[in-house]
Amino acid sequence: AVHKIAVIGGDGIGPEVIDQAVRAAEVAARKHDGAELKWNHLPWSTAYYKQHGRMLPEDGWEQLKPYDAILFGAVGDPSVPDKITVHELLLPMRRKFDQYVNLRPAYLFAGVPCPLVGKKPGEIDMLVYRENTEGEYAPVGGNLYPGTENQIAIQTGVFTWKGCERILRAAFEAAQKRPRKKLTSITKSNAQVYGLGLWDDVFNTVRKDYPDVDSSSLLVDAAAMDFVRKPEVFDVVVASNLFGDILTDLSAAVTGSIGLASSANINPTKKFPSMFEPVHGSAPDIAGQGKANPLAAVLSAALMLDHLGLAKSAAAVRKAVATVLAEGRVKTPDLAGTHTTTDMGNAVVEAVG
Amino acid sequence: AVHKIAVIGGDGIGPEVIDQAVRAAEVAARKHDGAELKWNHLPWSTAYYKQHGRMLPEDGWEQLKPYDAILFGAVGDPSVPDKITVHELLLPMRRKFDQYVNLRPAYLFAGVPCPLVGKKPGEIDMLVYRENTEGEYAPVGGNLYPGTENQIAIQTGVFTWKGCERILRAAFEAAQKRPRKKLTSITKSNAQVYGLGLWDDVFNTVRKDYPDVDSSSLLVDAAAMDFVRKPEVFDVVVASNLFGDILTDLSAAVTGSIGLASSANINPTKKFPSMFEPVHGSAPDIAGQGKANPLAAVLSAALMLDHLGLAKSAAAVRKAVATVLAEGRVKTPDLAGTHTTTDMGNAVVEAVG
Ligand SMILES: CC(C)[C@H](C(=O)O)[C@@H](O)C(=O)O
Ligand SMILES: CC(C)[C@H](C(=O)O)[C@@H](O)C(=O)O
Repeated sequence: AVHKIAVIGGDGIGPEVIDQAVRAAEVAARKHDGAELKWNHLPWSTAYYKQHGRMLPEDGWEQLKPYDAILFGAVGDPSVPDKITVHELLLPMRRKFDQYVNLRPAYLFAGVPCPLVGKKPGEIDMLVYRENTEGEYAPVGGNLYPGTENQIAIQTGVFTWKGCERILRAAFEAAQKRPRKKLTSITKSNAQVYGLGLWDDVFNTVRKDYPDVDSSSLLVDAAAMDFVRKPEVFDVVVASNLFGDILTDLSAAVTGSIGLASSANINPTKKFPSMFEPVHGSAPDIAGQGKANPLAAVLSAALMLDHLGLAKSAAAVRKAVATVLAEGRVKTPDLAGTHTTTDMGNAVVEAVG
Repeated sequence: AVHKIAVIGGDGIGPEVIDQAVRAAEVAARKHDGAELKWNHLPWSTAYYKQHGRMLPEDGWEQLKPYDAILFGAVGDPSVPDKITVHELLLPMRRKFDQYVNLRPAYLFAGVPCPLVGKKPGEIDMLVYRENTEGEYAPVGGNLYPGTENQIAIQTGVFTWKGCERILRAAFEAAQKRPRKKLTSITKSNAQVYGLGLWDDVFNTVRKDYPDVDSSSLLVDAAAMDFVRKPEVFDVVVASNLFGDILTDLSAAVTGSIGLASSANINPTKKFPSMFEPVHGSAPDIAGQGKANPLAAVLSAALMLDHLGLAKSAAAVRKAVATVLAEGRVKTPDLAGTHTTTDMGNAVVEAVG
């Protein structure tokens, strides 16, 4: 089978890490599933914006629709406001293609130094299900008396029963398939009674359909603390858009490096393409220097292979990453080594093949 | 001089820890500043609510106004919704008395086991200035089609120029007085352009008045990561209401125990009394068992002594706490010991005296 993938390297380290992800995924798909991946590179980025006055062509969203998946690097550049780069490409993609599941695994690999005392490889192993289309990221709000000392800004989070329900169900279904069958729902409904109060109500309704899952609710401040004190207790975590964002940077930190944090932005209905991207962002400070760890992008490509139904290839990529990390011969600067992005990519490709 | 303090022990472990804080503060004030503290215990709590149908008397807020300070334990009990306990006592107190500075120090004391690899005592030393009256905690929002699958909840954060400016100035002024003179302002304006965009605008205006302070801006997700990766780089941190809440539980975790995290809810104009409370909350699971660490309450009382102008007493309390922790003879369960709340209180009182 042929799978058509749109590749948007984007800004900063995006293109460098995505190149290595493409290589690893291609080798794995061919070898382990006999599948062909057809890559189409799209130059949409800040550079594209500077030339054309927009982040993507007028018919860009239409262009993307026929693809089986989108492999995405990062957008963001100090020379152009996030209001353009992030708000005209990344955030609308999640919403326009209704990629309501933002799945972000965090796993403590052998060979990766953990910043926490006494944690063993494999001991931290969680899947965070982040709501990805509404909540605190709704582009709703405005300003009164702008530019004066009387300025008032309002920022409105919008939560819907359906929006809460579908991410909670996705998380419960994932929990059912894991050995520990445990789920933690994160809110801050003691302070934000409307938006996250609704989330809690939906949680308490939905959980009745999953009596085999050990589910509970936790406040986001307590969760942040527990991600440091005892991250090993978490299995599946489900959180609103903003809390999912904060907690997944935290879960990346406690598992050793943001250079290993992968993510999938999934539309489970497959009506529109899903998108796969490393969590780390464009990191302009190290762009173009071969310093970026491509493994977050490689692991994001593994999530893409899963989504395409190429489970063997996905497993092979993950195994290759685990092997390379455990051996510790090749290490990028984030892992206290001096190897380059390409060195790391080579090591993975070799381990896959 | 005589200072009048209202004591609200509240729920759960609140009264137990506050008892020890009262003892330590009283001894210190008498001995080190020749000051008398006059304590008035108010029974406002969930128990009070169950008897009277309200968390505090109708004229409760009026009763509190003449006090020089309020020493507060915690509210929250599983038998009554937070919508009552938290929303009728704690959150309105912060707003009614315009306690717009929520100051939360985090310090890695000698003798306290740090969950992070390789951090030395004193190496983590930050003051978090949390906005305490508006932002994401504004009680603004509502529900449409409640109880149906079409339910929509909106939760509106309200940010004002004045509200941002006064907390930012308080933080800058604190930074000026510290050796490192460093300030980090936390937002998520790449996603929440209205509310936190205003915060950034005010930050960029206000910082011009403090050219001697090394100030910068950081996204909340990156901050969460850096609190784990390199908490030692932070000096003064200033954040919105919600982000300050999350980050201070995190700063408590990385400095070893929520049982040591103190806070001050300050109205710098002194028009209304300020309030001092441990960060930990009511912890109903360990209430009444003598297991709670009273040091968070004791250190909160030290912040109160500072606010009352009793700087010598405040310093003496902090020194006593540091001594008790460094000696490590008395340890509550959160510090992997078996001593009781009163044992710990005794040790501090002895060290102060
Ligand atoms: C009880 C809760 C509303 C409160 C808050 O979020 O402010 C608490 O977590 C705190 O940090 O003081
Ligand atoms: C760029 C930013 C808006 C984005 C987010 O907050 O979702 C990023 O931090 C992420 O986690 O994907």
